[in-house]
Amino acid sequence: MVRSGSGDIVHEGRKLAAGPAPAGDGVSMGESGPVAGDLPGIWGERLKEAELLRDLAPESRSALLAAGTRRRSARRTLLFSAGDAAETLFLLVSGRVKLVRGNADGQEVIVRFFAPGELLGGVAALPDRRYPATAEVVDDAELATWSRAALVPLMSRDPHLATAILGVVATRMGDVQGQLQELATERVAQRVARALLRLARQLGRKAEAGILIDLPLSRQNLAELTGTTLFTVSRLLSAWEAEGLLEVGRERVVIRSPHGLVRIAEDLP
Amino acid sequence: MVRSGSGDIVHEGRKLAAGPAPAGDGVSMGESGPVAGDLPGIWGERLKEAELLRDLAPESRSALLAAGTRRRSARRTLLFSAGDAAETLFLLVSGRVKLVRGNADGQEVIVRFFAPGELLGGVAALPDRRYPATAEVVDDAELATWSRAALVPLMSRDPHLATAILGVVATRMGDVQGQLQELATERVAQRVARALLRLARQLGRKAEAGILIDLPLSRQNLAELTGTTLFTVSRLLSAWEAEGLLEVGRERVVIRSPHGLVRIAEDLP
Repeated sequence: MVRSGSGDIVHEGRKLAAGPAPAGDGVSMGESGPVAGDLPGIWGERLKEAELLRDLAPESRSALLAAGTRRRSARRTLLFSAGDAAETLFLLVSGRVKLVRGNADGQEVIVRFFAPGELLGGVAALPDRRYPATAEVVDDAELATWSRAALVPLMSRDPHLATAILGVVATRMGDVQGQLQELATERVAQRVARALLRLARQLGRKAEAGILIDLPLSRQNLAELTGTTLFTVSRLLSAWEAEGLLEVGRERVVIRSPHGLVRIAEDLP
Repeated sequence: MVRSGSGDIVHEGRKLAAGPAPAGDGVSMGESGPVAGDLPGIWGERLKEAELLRDLAPESRSALLAAGTRRRSARRTLLFSAGDAAETLFLLVSGRVKLVRGNADGQEVIVRFFAPGELLGGVAALPDRRYPATAEVVDDAELATWSRAALVPLMSRDPHLATAILGVVATRMGDVQGQLQELATERVAQRVARALLRLARQLGRKAEAGILIDLPLSRQNLAELTGTTLFTVSRLLSAWEAEGLLEVGRERVVIRSPHGLVRIAEDLP
């Protein structure tokens, strides 16, 4: 197992605050850092269906699992910051992570939320790169990580690994292009409705009243995600709540009428 | 040399119109299609510094060149359309190409312009993908192309090839994230100034009066590139022309004061 360099994965100095420990899934949380136990033994079966690993042949998957390290990171930990040397590839096993890009004035855009099974920091497979954005843990997370030192020999031996990482990055590229198009051409209401539907699809859970999105997602976050103002988001959510399309609580949104939101997102009459 | 499948690279049925043949660089243009002559012999030296090829070891570069096909495409040819099966990787040797994404209403966003030496359609290195956007030739272009059938055996033999393609796609990813952030957080004037500066850096030529961007770039295109309206772009360009920052002609912009545009782009006093 390769553990070299894993000590600098989590920027402890930048850890803003640790949130309360959630139920997790069988692992007690609350502290960040590498965790004992190997990936193949403990997470092997769970990771078979994860992005990146599901596209690999069994032998390639085993070799990759054997070279990785387990890690858990508390809410608000920064996995990496924009501009940091890209040394580590992350696969989110549980919890959620957001990818944020800021400008010189401190204004931020949420580029994307990551759900369990998704890959972050694919650029770490390349030499001499920097992360183009900042990744912050949204609720306590379990992660599989690989240092570039661990990846490079694997990639040299197994050409399918680089292709699999390329596959993930290319999919993400299509998504970001889609967001760019939305921002450039769609009205704000469409963008906000579309963002909520995307979150519901990616991270939502079926609940009695509809689809539950239980994210620490403030109105300000939703404004950042859709490139608009807090005021506009608040006005839209209040109107949609009054129409019965959704319910907005603290750190949760329940979409009561996905069809109603689709109508808005697609600008249907 | 692998030529299989190259006949369906250019969608002749979608070729809107052929522009006049420009001077080119030693090759007479005006008709689209594969061109006789092998890449290593004719373009080998020129392609050494191209994106993708410059990061490869000499043997890998030779193998890649030997597997490619030359092609030329007239202005307004669509190299590929969003949703087409991604079967071909393109390297632009001369001319310019724009990448466009449209929505159901026919509104379009220009995602990016491509300059000589840049790679398009990296997704074609992956099985069963579709192009996420549409690539249109802006002025008569010479291209090196590779079918996926030609790429796959090369990628299996040489793991550095997939890594090199990943490198290009990852760089593009950072660029698109930057555009997303600009669209979400910056005022329109900043965005238009920044787009002009980006085009100047990427495609500009030093001229007596300043930096010449000689693109068939209408005010409408500039509006699409920056997610704003024709009206707003026209108003900004007229104001900047009056201030002496630039000169706008038919299919050309001369930036007389790059510093003046930087001041606007960075929102400096």
